[in-house]
Amino acid sequence: MAQKPSIPKGTRDFSPVEMAKRNYIFNTIREVYALYGFQQIETPAMENLSTLMGKYGEEGDKLLFKILNSGDFLHGMTAEEVATTSTQRLAAKFCEKGLRYDLTVPFARYVVQHREELALPFKRYQIQPVWRADRPQKGRYREFYQCDADVVGSESLLNEVELMQIIDTVFTRFGVRVCIKINNRKILSGIAEMIGQADKIVDITVAIDKLDKIGLEAVNAELAEDGIPAEAIEKLQPIIQLSGTNAEKLQTMRSVLAGSETGLKGVEECEYILSKLTALNNPMELDLTLARGLNYYTGAIFEVKALDVEIGSITGGGRYDNLTGIFGMPGLSGVGISFGADRIFDVLNQLDLYPKETINATKLLFVNFGEAETDFCLPVLAKVRAAGVAAEIYPDAAKMKKQMSYANAKQIPFVALVGENEMAAGKLTLKNMETGEQSLVTADELVEKLK
Amino acid sequence: MAQKPSIPKGTRDFSPVEMAKRNYIFNTIREVYALYGFQQIETPAMENLSTLMGKYGEEGDKLLFKILNSGDFLHGMTAEEVATTSTQRLAAKFCEKGLRYDLTVPFARYVVQHREELALPFKRYQIQPVWRADRPQKGRYREFYQCDADVVGSESLLNEVELMQIIDTVFTRFGVRVCIKINNRKILSGIAEMIGQADKIVDITVAIDKLDKIGLEAVNAELAEDGIPAEAIEKLQPIIQLSGTNAEKLQTMRSVLAGSETGLKGVEECEYILSKLTALNNPMELDLTLARGLNYYTGAIFEVKALDVEIGSITGGGRYDNLTGIFGMPGLSGVGISFGADRIFDVLNQLDLYPKETINATKLLFVNFGEAETDFCLPVLAKVRAAGVAAEIYPDAAKMKKQMSYANAKQIPFVALVGENEMAAGKLTLKNMETGEQSLVTADELVEKLK
Repeated sequence: MAQKPSIPKGTRDFSPVEMAKRNYIFNTIREVYALYGFQQIETPAMENLSTLMGKYGEEGDKLLFKILNSGDFLHGMTAEEVATTSTQRLAAKFCEKGLRYDLTVPFARYVVQHREELALPFKRYQIQPVWRADRPQKGRYREFYQCDADVVGSESLLNEVELMQIIDTVFTRFGVRVCIKINNRKILSGIAEMIGQADKIVDITVAIDKLDKIGLEAVNAELAEDGIPAEAIEKLQPIIQLSGTNAEKLQTMRSVLAGSETGLKGVEECEYILSKLTALNNPMELDLTLARGLNYYTGAIFEVKALDVEIGSITGGGRYDNLTGIFGMPGLSGVGISFGADRIFDVLNQLDLYPKETINATKLLFVNFGEAETDFCLPVLAKVRAAGVAAEIYPDAAKMKKQMSYANAKQIPFVALVGENEMAAGKLTLKNMETGEQSLVTADELVEKLK
Repeated sequence: MAQKPSIPKGTRDFSPVEMAKRNYIFNTIREVYALYGFQQIETPAMENLSTLMGKYGEEGDKLLFKILNSGDFLHGMTAEEVATTSTQRLAAKFCEKGLRYDLTVPFARYVVQHREELALPFKRYQIQPVWRADRPQKGRYREFYQCDADVVGSESLLNEVELMQIIDTVFTRFGVRVCIKINNRKILSGIAEMIGQADKIVDITVAIDKLDKIGLEAVNAELAEDGIPAEAIEKLQPIIQLSGTNAEKLQTMRSVLAGSETGLKGVEECEYILSKLTALNNPMELDLTLARGLNYYTGAIFEVKALDVEIGSITGGGRYDNLTGIFGMPGLSGVGISFGADRIFDVLNQLDLYPKETINATKLLFVNFGEAETDFCLPVLAKVRAAGVAAEIYPDAAKMKKQMSYANAKQIPFVALVGENEMAAGKLTLKNMETGEQSLVTADELVEKLK
């Protein structure tokens, strides 16, 4: 036999059970997005490289999968020119198109390209794969799905509130206990402004984040190591030791940031979002160490952690002020979230939270005893399906054992047996595969039992 | 403003209304596949080029989108080597991976790669995009979806019967009147055998297909032009003039093909399939001019035409005997169908058959009159959504006209209005956007009305 075929590293096949689980995840997210008035769009897998290049930093450019131009991709270049041109520039000459690296840049491109058709605010969701030429490792793939929702064209913080409700609703439906954390880029800017260390904000949040693990003294030592002056570290003390309820934290922040207009704006925004969510009984936690996507987000920042599984952030997002500016359409504010489908898949697996009915598809198998029995079964099978019950007939009159092991492999809960006696009586024997219980039923009773 | 961004030619963005329509199509197909016990799988967009090359003929190889290897794709090639290597071989050196060209070859690769996990017969469906570097033109795209279902590992003709039932069920659900045509490769082989012209079978079916348009004499003239001897044309007469019911046609074929074992086997197979489908009240038409995928199919061949729209085949399929042989696993018979989603989209558009509720997503918009009103509305909104009704609040307290035009643009059928009077009464004004009718209701009444 020839060598077993394989797939590119970092990519995956999804088998029926995995697909059923993934569909459960995607469908749940899709349903909740729709419940909140978000509309789905899709963009092509391939984008022009001019759309993608320069949007993800130098490192990101290297991780783009580029598609070789069809036909004569050398396009008249001499061998000499090829040999003396850098690989990167050659790639740019040979390739006009690349695979989507995320859903955000294609969305920005979409908004600009279709702006005349869009009724703003535009609430869109998008669930599609993206591709990155990253080094594959556990939990990191070269092809994976993103599940984004964004609102563009509205600066209202109600959008933030609704996105947090969406997160809460989705994880409630999954039955996963989570902690939803919120922060605000403006608060972080205010802190940096206040201590005169704008470029150190990441170091500061990283150090503060270690408080529980290493204690106050070690945190202060680390800050000093990061080159933050003693005076600034002194000023940071109330922030490092920030504790209490969200309201108490905000109270402290308000006094610490009294001198920073930006910082106070951040506190105010957090306050608005948290008060609305408290009224709606959606608990969240203010966490100043949350500092994701700092080059990108300009207002609220969100992150979700699973409480019962050790795993990184399973959902995140935030407010950005100039998404479409890169495509020549400035001043359009947006806010969005993204569910991490692969990690949610792992969480639901570990907690065994998939509803059984999402995985078991076929409910009834008609055992095949031969032509005459098949002719008896086919109209009943049609009736069962017409009632919306997924059912099959084993296509060959194979040995009983083989047919039963097929039913077991597919975890089909019921089989229908029809032999001479049943045909004579115009009935079917229905067997419950779990209990082994059998009963003789008419076609109508069969349908009634399975519906 | 910068130049408007664009997408690669032959690709498409799908806007919310198009997405809703496409989802309706995909979901209908998906539901019916599941009803018949087919399980979904997905394979990666990228396959190793070694998996794809040589599977679609020389022309197909050229139409594969190839992905440039990451990093130093030149891999130390000298100018000399570049100069003396053909573009096609260079492409093979620079690229290890390509984009999926169809779902059939990846499925065959999947079956071989996962054979130890599969319970045969394996009934899988797959709905994913494919990519072809074809010259784009009206109705032909470089990225498009295929919706395939196949059964492998069973030679039973019941599989053919069920696939025909699936086609019938899907188009019945769509409300599209279709003609389902069936033929058999073995009958065509028998005809060729009988007249000693195996290589002329395509010419023969093309000529026969013109009978209605050009008449018998012209058909015979064309056959002669194709180089078919007079004696053979004479033998073909009963086939060219074949008419009547399926049973009558089969009767004629049986006598014409009396000398061909293969031909008679084909007649027998058709007979079996047609008799089962007749018993199930699923009409089909035997059509000897159906000659799709001749290099590929070995038994039954299917094709579906819409009766009320001028468009090519909207679904097709057939039986193939050695799909996985190319990957070193011979002897596994399979049969499959593929719905042409893009053409079905056009058909449903032309006949205006999309159910209204699939397109209109949000059912209720709360008009935003300011902070106090919003605080009143938010818990009601949460209640409406908890009842499963898609609803929104306009995020900004914008001018009434702007909010109403948003509702119109999204075709939202109801709006809720809450001002001082409503808040005082603890009620909401519900307005039907179509009739203009307004009523004052409690939150519970609102939910009840919209559910």
